[in-house]
Amino acid sequence: MEIRNPDYRQRATAIFSDAPFINDLGIEPLSISPGFVESRLTILPRHLQQDRFIHAGVQATLADHTAGAAAFSVIGADQLVLTSGFSINLMSAASGEELRARAQVLKAGQRLICVESSVYAISGGVEKLVAKAMVTLAVLPGPD
Amino acid sequence: MEIRNPDYRQRATAIFSDAPFINDLGIEPLSISPGFVESRLTILPRHLQQDRFIHAGVQATLADHTAGAAAFSVIGADQLVLTSGFSINLMSAASGEELRARAQVLKAGQRLICVESSVYAISGGVEKLVAKAMVTLAVLPGPD
Amino acid sequence: MEIRNPDYRQRATAIFSDAPFINDLGIEPLSISPGFVESRLTILPRHLQQDRFIHAGVQATLADHTAGAAAFSVIGADQLVLTSGFSINLMSAASGEELRARAQVLKAGQRLICVESSVYAISGGVEKLVAKAMVTLAVLPGPD
Amino acid sequence: MEIRNPDYRQRATAIFSDAPFINDLGIEPLSISPGFVESRLTILPRHLQQDRFIHAGVQATLADHTAGAAAFSVIGADQLVLTSGFSINLMSAASGEELRARAQVLKAGQRLICVESSVYAISGGVEKLVAKAMVTLAVLPGPD
Repeated sequence: MEIRNPDYRQRATAIFSDAPFINDLGIEPLSISPGFVESRLTILPRHLQQDRFIHAGVQATLADHTAGAAAFSVIGADQLVLTSGFSINLMSAASGEELRARAQVLKAGQRLICVESSVYAISGGVEKLVAKAMVTLAVLPGPD
Repeated sequence: MEIRNPDYRQRATAIFSDAPFINDLGIEPLSISPGFVESRLTILPRHLQQDRFIHAGVQATLADHTAGAAAFSVIGADQLVLTSGFSINLMSAASGEELRARAQVLKAGQRLICVESSVYAISGGVEKLVAKAMVTLAVLPGPD
Repeated sequence: MEIRNPDYRQRATAIFSDAPFINDLGIEPLSISPGFVESRLTILPRHLQQDRFIHAGVQATLADHTAGAAAFSVIGADQLVLTSGFSINLMSAASGEELRARAQVLKAGQRLICVESSVYAISGGVEKLVAKAMVTLAVLPGPD
Repeated sequence: MEIRNPDYRQRATAIFSDAPFINDLGIEPLSISPGFVESRLTILPRHLQQDRFIHAGVQATLADHTAGAAAFSVIGADQLVLTSGFSINLMSAASGEELRARAQVLKAGQRLICVESSVYAISGGVEKLVAKAMVTLAVLPGPD
């Protein structure tokens, strides 16, 4: 994956620390390389839905934001990305003490970046794929 | 839309009050009828992303959960639904003082329910469509 | 919906007549207005799948191409569009003598156009919604 | 991947030969194992769209049908599957002499099967990923 911004790691990291909703949920980056980001979230009671599974919205937020960070790792310093849409399949009712997302850029175009995000629930130390998302992000000029 | 549970309104309302993540975000129902639910969220700084737009994950959570409530309004008292997947298009960078979602059941099958959710941002009192989602939910036996 | 190309009707019509796959299947436009296109397809035995329902691929092709024509109706004469992705929900096993698609542009951005396509099967003269798609198209410079 | 039908290979093969639309397009299976199917299509002029790229509908049909065959390889002899929906990302304008799809079952549930399909275009003997789809199929009783 081509590196267009030598400070890609710092930029992708900032995508986590600068986003209030991500801080509020507790999502944090684990590893960043060009076109790939892994992140994690310790599951708290407030992340659950009415049947005490991890809410689909939490999984979607983790999948989307980690995909965004992966996209940030391959764009130029004078660009930003914004999610234009995503689809997510929730394969199993998710529970456990932690969620992890691994996001891999599949295609880094001039205008659109396509990223695949896999979400894993860790329960009793055992990791299980619970969701998979395809995220499309628009490449925009910026930051100002 | 056929009513299979006379207490559909109470059940769909409980989907909001019983889900910790939904309470935590501040999402609340506005109106419920068979196959249709409208909900709202007052936007707070903690709902934003790094460029101070409303996070895609917040929009996705609102779209998904409101769709789930709409699905709950058309199932039997001895059934529950679980999101099996959704796709969401984010048409505009969203900002404003409030989000609203309107979810309409398009097809209530024996096994799958398909719901369309439209998300609107209200800024200065003016409402704008910012996202649209198609949510697929599996109908399962339960609650126990 | 703003008209950026006075010859929009001719252009959207040509999208049907100039596409070999669309001619081969038998898809034809019914009505074109700025941001909206309706099309039809007479169902033949060759459009079916193994259980003699209309193949999901036929429905997807109709939904996607009609969305593309709707997008062509709102772009400039010096632009073209290319589908970057879509999601489709197939709500019922589709059968009948004809399929119709109605595609409505939801958002015509400078870079991306978002279109909603509804697919109806007509059986014994009765129309039924069988599929709904959200199509995202990239706006590109061209034709050369 | 668990084998619930010892004749899984014959059944998945028949999904290609028994579907008129698939025969009409020219799609054929290349390899079948439990939960995985690869297929191919020789590209003809009739598969193209107005700019002479391979039509998105052709790619979607290949991705969906190959996913269906992969799902058929993991169900019981007394069951069938029907696509309930899919999303597809078209990463590059596709051209070449052949398309191939590789479909892998990600989750084979009692009610829903989730399959990932990757579509490759082969041009001058060089293979390139052009599209990726996530397909959700409902498991139904049958054949009669």
